[in-house]
Formats: sequence, C-alpha cells, structure tokens
Amino acid sequence: MRMDVRPAVAWTGDAIEIIDQTLLPAEERVLRLRTPDEVVDAIRRLAVRGAPAIGVTGALGVLLARGDRDAAERIASARPTAVNLRWAVTRVLASDDPEGEALRILEEDVEACRAIGENGREELADAGRILTVCNTGRLAAAGWGTALGVVYAKAEAGDPVEVFACETRPLLQGARLTAWELEDAGIPVTVLTDGAAPTLLARGDIDAVIVGCDRVAANGDVANKIGTYALAIAARHHGVPFYVAGPRSTIDPATAAGAEIEIEERDGDEVRLVAGLTSRTNVWNPAFDVTPAGLITGLITDVGVLRAPYGSSIARALAP
Amino acid sequence: MRMDVRPAVAWTGDAIEIIDQTLLPAEERVLRLRTPDEVVDAIRRLAVRGAPAIGVTGALGVLLARGDRDAAERIASARPTAVNLRWAVTRVLASDDPEGEALRILEEDVEACRAIGENGREELADAGRILTVCNTGRLAAAGWGTALGVVYAKAEAGDPVEVFACETRPLLQGARLTAWELEDAGIPVTVLTDGAAPTLLARGDIDAVIVGCDRVAANGDVANKIGTYALAIAARHHGVPFYVAGPRSTIDPATAAGAEIEIEERDGDEVRLVAGLTSRTNVWNPAFDVTPAGLITGLITDVGVLRAPYGSSIARALAP
Repeated sequence: MRMDVRPAVAWTGDAIEIIDQTLLPAEERVLRLRTPDEVVDAIRRLAVRGAPAIGVTGALGVLLARGDRDAAERIASARPTAVNLRWAVTRVLASDDPEGEALRILEEDVEACRAIGENGREELADAGRILTVCNTGRLAAAGWGTALGVVYAKAEAGDPVEVFACETRPLLQGARLTAWELEDAGIPVTVLTDGAAPTLLARGDIDAVIVGCDRVAANGDVANKIGTYALAIAARHHGVPFYVAGPRSTIDPATAAGAEIEIEERDGDEVRLVAGLTSRTNVWNPAFDVTPAGLITGLITDVGVLRAPYGSSIARALAP
Repeated sequence: MRMDVRPAVAWTGDAIEIIDQTLLPAEERVLRLRTPDEVVDAIRRLAVRGAPAIGVTGALGVLLARGDRDAAERIASARPTAVNLRWAVTRVLASDDPEGEALRILEEDVEACRAIGENGREELADAGRILTVCNTGRLAAAGWGTALGVVYAKAEAGDPVEVFACETRPLLQGARLTAWELEDAGIPVTVLTDGAAPTLLARGDIDAVIVGCDRVAANGDVANKIGTYALAIAARHHGVPFYVAGPRSTIDPATAAGAEIEIEERDGDEVRLVAGLTSRTNVWNPAFDVTPAGLITGLITDVGVLRAPYGSSIARALAP
C-alpha cells in the first residue's frame, strides 16, 4: 500500500503553507505565513509543531525575513527545546543561496523521514504493536515523520502494524493529531490516556515503544514530549524495547548531556482549561522531559540505528 | 491548625446528601438522593466517587430501597471495582437495624480516615512533599479521606506538607477535586499532567508517593485509579517510597490476587471529548489499574501500616 503523504509544510515562493494543527481534528485549515512574526506566532502557539516541521518552517521563515537578522533570530528562539529550529535557521543564514538551502532542508527532511522509516522497519520487523506518545508523523515533519515514519514504512511494506497512541496531555497531540493522520492512512490506532500505558505493557500487548525527539544530547540523552520518560521507565520495567526515532539534525553535539537541555515550561492554562480551573490553582506545565540514554534500546536515525554506547555511536554518525 | 472537614456524604433521615462531584470546581452543589435508582445513577456517573464514599452511599442507599433486595443489588453492582460498595450494602442487608448499621458504617469511615491519617503521619514524619493521583480526600470518603487523610493529619499537627496532584485523566479528579479541597483547606498544592510525574521524581522533589485504593487483594496487589501503576513503577525506579492508604474495608480477602479484580472499562467519550474526537476513533478507557504488591512500600490502614509479606500482614489485620 503506497502511503499518501500530503506535506504539512510547503513553500509557495512568497509564503509558508502549514496545516493549522491547533484546529485538528475538527478542521483541516491551511495557514499562509507571510511574515517572520507570523512564523514566530505559528511556532509559539503550536500551529506548526514537531521538531522536524518547526526546523523546516524556521528555514523557510528566514526567506520571509529577507535578510533581517533580528527577525531570523526571533524565529530561531521562538521555542527553546527542539534543536532543529536554530540549526535550520543558522544553516539558511550561512548560505549564499538561502532559498535553495531552505528547500534543500525541506527535501532532506522528506528523505530523512523515509530513511528513518526503512531503518526502523528493518530493526523492528517483528514488532507489530507499537506504543507511542505525541505526534511524530506527517504533521510533525515535511516527510512522513519519525516514529510514525517507521509505522508508515511498515504499512507500505504490507507488514502488520497497529498503533496505541497516548493522548499526550496537556495539548493532546496523540489524540488529536496521531489518531487523525493514522485513521486518514487506514492504519489501526487506539487512543488511551497517558496513565494507562503501563497496563498495556503489563498485559504483553505492546511489542515496542517508539517515540520522537526534540533534542538528542551527545551522550544519547533525549528530550521529548512530556510523558516520554514515563514510557521509557515503564518499558524498561516490562522488558519492552524503547526506541527513539529522529533525523541526525535532532542530535546536538554541543549539548553534552540531557541535564543541559533547556526544558520549555508553558502556560499553566494549557492544563487548567479542560479541568475548569482558574489561575488561583498552581500548575507545573513542562512541555518536555529528558530520558537518559540508559533507558533507550536504540536511536533510529536516517543513517542507521545507533546503539549504546551512544557517545561513540553518535560521534560516528555525525562525522562528516 | 484544625482541619475543617465538611462531610461529602450525609443522611437526612429520608435522603442521602452528596456534593455533586461532576460540577466541581465550578460549582459546589448538594444533591439529595431519594430513591435507589438515583443512588445507582449518582454512583455510575461519578457524582459520588471514591471507594469509601461509594461504600457509605451504598449503605445509606439500602435504607432508600426499603427492603427491596433487587434494588439493593442494583446499588451493590453499580460499579464493579471498589469492593467497599458491595461490602457495605451486604452489611446493611444482613443487619436487624439497617439504619443503625448504615450510620455505623458512615461513622466508622470517619474514624478509619482519622486513624489512617495518624498512622500515615507517624510513618511519613519526614516526608513533606507528597505526590498523589486522583482524589482521596474528604470528597472521596465520609471522613477526611485516605491518602489525603495523611496530608490533613500532617497539616493538623503543624508538620510541613505540600501536595503534587496528578491531574488524573480522563476525569481529572486530581485537578478538579484534590486541588479544590486542598486549596479550601489552605494546604499548598500543585497540579501537573500525569505524564510529568516521573520528572518530579527524577528531580528529587518528592519524598513519598501516597495513593488510595479501590480494592486490595489478599496478597497485597492494589486496584486503584488508572495511572497509579505508572506512579508505582516510576517511584521504584527513583527509589522513592510508594504507599497505598485505605481502610480495612477496602481489603477483599475473597480476591486472592490483582489479576482477579474486575477492572471497569468506561465510555471512550470520557477520553474523546476534550480532544474533539468523534466515535470513529478507537479508545481504550480502563478506569483502574493494578499495582503488584511488590512495588508497595506499605499499606497505611486504620489498624496500622501493613508491610510485605502482605499475605500474612493482611491476614493478621483482618483477623477478628
């Protein structure tokens, strides 16, 4: 079955087109971003999200900045945790052919997603029942995604595959986005609350956990959506393999270890709203957490599956 | 500081008064239940919830059944997991003085809560930062609650205490009810998403996890709100003590082990609604999970803190 991957980020020549992910699944609306400030706003309010997708959007955003370095810097710092954003902006700024470079970043992402998918499909040939968190598919990248890229590669190859999607509080990207795009692709998906995942693992209903990543440190520690660390601990407790999928561009050699990664804390109202809480209630709302390398079975990248010891396998993967 | 514990369940002589917990924190409305069917409905839709509270409500509900055994059976089977409900209904049905027996169950719950609080306060004298899930306080019992009973006992004794409340998807009892009643009591509380809890543990910000229970098997396995097992695994991973608090009536000697406990699965719309999902999306929505006895540091009961091996400590606690 050929997977139909409609791009979530596209360049029209004078604007960036994205699917507004805050409106899904109720409405599939395309937003046209025409200025750097519109790009910053779209990234901050998560109209576009997912480390690869905000990297590509940032790269294209530099074109909208038309040489204004301050505007480019505002884009690069719109969100702090995913390293792809600053990496992509910096790359376009340093190029003599910004438009060519930005489009190359977009095309490389499509290719990296496909390679991640194939590498993961080979690694996890016997793993049909996949537990995941957040959204790591075509809505999170220019291509078909990272962790869900593995799922799409399996589906395209005709391998049996079924996804259990943690809803991913507070912003419910698993329930809203992962379920939507997998249903759209005809891949079986079941949504569960984040707290229910360990029971699935205890029942023996999961063959592998695969998650995406917002930044991978040089030692293999991984920052990803809040709730990832809980899955890693639970997977280890049950002896279920725990994989992280992402392109090389998500690995940050300048970050030695997870403790150095800045974790974005977002507005507590993201948590309060659905519970009917007012601002009088204290809320702690970190957007990401850090999973130590020791809990990770393998890093599925576009250049192969990296394994412990991650310091050396990552250094080799990043070598020119 | 004397804790002001307004009862969440009361008997007026011809009706049961409960605080409608589906409306909190927006509105504190008292419901008067006058018929067995109103009792069944209130228990099923969680207008009253928490194992001790539904036990007391079930006991009082038998009075409204006025000798109708079918109606009493409908009350006993309104929810399957918490053993207190059937235990309380059976006890009133077997009594020559139903009203006296039902009121005794209510009064015993108040006393049990206080004893649980005192036993937990002594056990956890040095644990000021408490992580919990769901609601186990005065809204979950006739008295001041179980896990939160320990918190109230600490506050009343002037011991420093601060609560980190997992919001507890899908129905957000942690965010809606635990935050509300602790704010009401002047005890510091911070709400977090369920997936964020392991990060608090990793930071060293938690001294002990304390949860309630809906049923304790004879071997010490515990059924409690979905998400509890995730906390137990994460607490073990971080070497943080994990306690379960509940009255003796929550221990079911007829249930040998956790695998025998019927886990209620509830309507998937409880998960779908806030994400804007339609019924086309598959959802798995278990209301409870089972934590194996091996992950439990101690069972804080009204007759003391029980410890492994639980088979024998529980048998001793239940001996007449």
